[in-house]
Amino acid sequence: MSSRTVSEELHISRNTVKLAYDQLFAEGIIASVQRKGYYVESLDVDAFPHNTCLCSVVCNCADGCTCSGGCVCEVCARKKSSETQKQDIVYDFRCDKPLLFWFPCNQWQRLINKCFHEYREDFACPKAVFGETGLRTEIQRFIHSYRDVDCTVEQIVLTMDTQFCLDIVCQLLKPMDKEPNVAVEEPGLDQSRITFQNNGLRICPMELDQHGAVISALTKMDVIAAYLTPSHQFPTGVVMPLPRRNEVAEWAMRKDAYIIEDDYNCYFQYGVRPLPSLQSLCADRTFYINSFSNILFPCINVSYMVVPEKLLARLHNLFDNHGPFVSFLTQKPLELFMKEGLWESHLRKVRKNQNAKCETLVNALKNRFGDSISISGSSAGLHLLVHPNWTVTEDALINCAHQAGVGVSPISGYWIKPERKQDGTVLLNYAGIALKDIPAAVNLLYEAWREM
Amino acid sequence: MSSRTVSEELHISRNTVKLAYDQLFAEGIIASVQRKGYYVESLDVDAFPHNTCLCSVVCNCADGCTCSGGCVCEVCARKKSSETQKQDIVYDFRCDKPLLFWFPCNQWQRLINKCFHEYREDFACPKAVFGETGLRTEIQRFIHSYRDVDCTVEQIVLTMDTQFCLDIVCQLLKPMDKEPNVAVEEPGLDQSRITFQNNGLRICPMELDQHGAVISALTKMDVIAAYLTPSHQFPTGVVMPLPRRNEVAEWAMRKDAYIIEDDYNCYFQYGVRPLPSLQSLCADRTFYINSFSNILFPCINVSYMVVPEKLLARLHNLFDNHGPFVSFLTQKPLELFMKEGLWESHLRKVRKNQNAKCETLVNALKNRFGDSISISGSSAGLHLLVHPNWTVTEDALINCAHQAGVGVSPISGYWIKPERKQDGTVLLNYAGIALKDIPAAVNLLYEAWREM
Repeated sequence: MSSRTVSEELHISRNTVKLAYDQLFAEGIIASVQRKGYYVESLDVDAFPHNTCLCSVVCNCADGCTCSGGCVCEVCARKKSSETQKQDIVYDFRCDKPLLFWFPCNQWQRLINKCFHEYREDFACPKAVFGETGLRTEIQRFIHSYRDVDCTVEQIVLTMDTQFCLDIVCQLLKPMDKEPNVAVEEPGLDQSRITFQNNGLRICPMELDQHGAVISALTKMDVIAAYLTPSHQFPTGVVMPLPRRNEVAEWAMRKDAYIIEDDYNCYFQYGVRPLPSLQSLCADRTFYINSFSNILFPCINVSYMVVPEKLLARLHNLFDNHGPFVSFLTQKPLELFMKEGLWESHLRKVRKNQNAKCETLVNALKNRFGDSISISGSSAGLHLLVHPNWTVTEDALINCAHQAGVGVSPISGYWIKPERKQDGTVLLNYAGIALKDIPAAVNLLYEAWREM
Repeated sequence: MSSRTVSEELHISRNTVKLAYDQLFAEGIIASVQRKGYYVESLDVDAFPHNTCLCSVVCNCADGCTCSGGCVCEVCARKKSSETQKQDIVYDFRCDKPLLFWFPCNQWQRLINKCFHEYREDFACPKAVFGETGLRTEIQRFIHSYRDVDCTVEQIVLTMDTQFCLDIVCQLLKPMDKEPNVAVEEPGLDQSRITFQNNGLRICPMELDQHGAVISALTKMDVIAAYLTPSHQFPTGVVMPLPRRNEVAEWAMRKDAYIIEDDYNCYFQYGVRPLPSLQSLCADRTFYINSFSNILFPCINVSYMVVPEKLLARLHNLFDNHGPFVSFLTQKPLELFMKEGLWESHLRKVRKNQNAKCETLVNALKNRFGDSISISGSSAGLHLLVHPNWTVTEDALINCAHQAGVGVSPISGYWIKPERKQDGTVLLNYAGIALKDIPAAVNLLYEAWREM
């Protein structure tokens, strides 16, 4: 239906209709056909094959790892330290990498070959350190449309990795005339905490409630920045509601502090429109960070960051003498992938599949366990938390599950203050498990835990 | 001829013959044919087509650059600041990038496609931050054979760029219980000086003589490290002789200091066998740095570094929580490129061509200018220095050359102490100029400068 017809039928302006269409297109719900208009896309989730977790499929590790496939990802590394590692894991809720099937290998190979044919002469030309204008323009368009991020192309910096984005943030923040303290979520991502500490910043644990960071506690802190995961707090899974987002933005402006927004799970908001990013509420004081790696290929190694405009001069002083952080032969295919609309279509497919897995997992857990467990963090992201309503330790839950062939992860490592740890809670990541395997996996969990 | 026959004829051990063959193979003088033996390779330099400099061929810059091709490389950026930039440059001795023709595009494309067919399952597997074992093993083998570098695979770190290697070196050196002073060559690479300064290190200019760094001056300094370019000092072009290399190694051991060896031009030693790296003389105190970018593709973005063994624990503490610095889809083709012997063959071809260009340039300069100029730094590398024997300023030489259509570079920017600058000296980089164009370019230079 044309935007004019919709506008007339609903008595709203054509701009509003256009914006709504743009949003639907960005989220991959509708597709654009040249000179014809927009069409709703259908997708049958069950049509996708169900592989087993990559961890047990593709790894070929020779360093003494004893997990089924030798995977060296963080979750699996943590697993190794567990006494139960010798058990055979049949269903693995510990891997945060999507299934190999989902990676757009054929499209990527086609685009790389296209670069060799059509952009070969660009290979020899020296490249800009923060990325090619073409790719940065595509990213700027996408995050503006999908996450309301308000920035220029010049503010976008491509790097290899989220942790490297944080390294740059630290270098930009450190010379400020303040104590180098940074507030981090408690519990929160341990990898990022390590990066802050390695860069000489002091970590200040930040209290959380059911809406995310507690502003009154944050206000009392003397920090130059707060590191937040508002789209799906890790590990609690809280999605920060809009009023709290506004409070965070107001805090940053009042205290002359910065927000470091790690939006890694923004693509997986189920049943609701993603809330606007913190960056959209406080553009001049927010570092916005996101990544392509976990959704396209883990090995693509492209993350990006939006740097507040007033820090651009310092950014250039620090890095203009460097070579590009990301190779041209990665940037150009990604630019073409986005330009051809493949990125949004890929996102939609992956989101729909993950949503189906999330629903299936929640329903299976509720059906089997009834009121004997609580589930949290399932409205978004790629993982949820399970809290049994009986007294049990995290270790006991994990060991018991592993003995039954189900891999689940601890969350105690994400707390800085050990006394604050929630006991008897485990994390189930469904990124790397197939939809069809979820009911059987939950059955095994139920059999394992009913005896406790 | 078999190694046994050679051994018998020359009355030397077969091991010596084998070592000599390995060295010839590493340098690309001989090729190995399976089950047949080694064959001397012939190469007709004149058979290669002669393109014009990339700077004026492939660039398509839209940022207001007025150089002929819009190239944004460091040398050309410096050129922009010159008043003569509006002149049309016909022959350009300012570009340090090789000609597009030399890049092994077809081989690279074939190897990437091979990765999609044969290593697709590896795409999803999380990767080691410092690089894949396969590629690091190839690099270890090559630098051991070609540069006598003595290290394990674990000591090799792949990064995107030499400057990023230096960032890591700074982070490893800074916590030492000493003043963070680093000795740098005077004159020397300004890019590297900026990196040291941005990382909080203090720069101490180090006196040079005709053999490189003056040890007596270095000994008086209180520094944690000395940054050196012994294969072809930039910009003077001095190749550090073996006795001086031994003195540097002895200094590092005596003073408990580190050597940062930037071996960027080691591939271009003409008429002589490359001298052993400083790392081979002082393995436990040397960071050895080199790059693939300028020789394979400028856009490949792969440099590497050998980290002294005793600093590996700290290296892992700092970066183990990061993603890989270089993408798998760059690492794997490079590993295959090296495994198939293409790297050594490519190096040999490029070296032979650059050697021919160097000889042609020196001969042309001597023929035209006779005793009125001195030439230095032409025994290695990709550039040489021209010092007119009459009184003239650098600016006058450059402007006059540019007006005649020849691009040459200043060297005054490479000095820290302005009073030490050598006046009336310019730098001619022949990496990006075609062999056949050199006589005509020198003729133009002669016509331009004879009137001064």
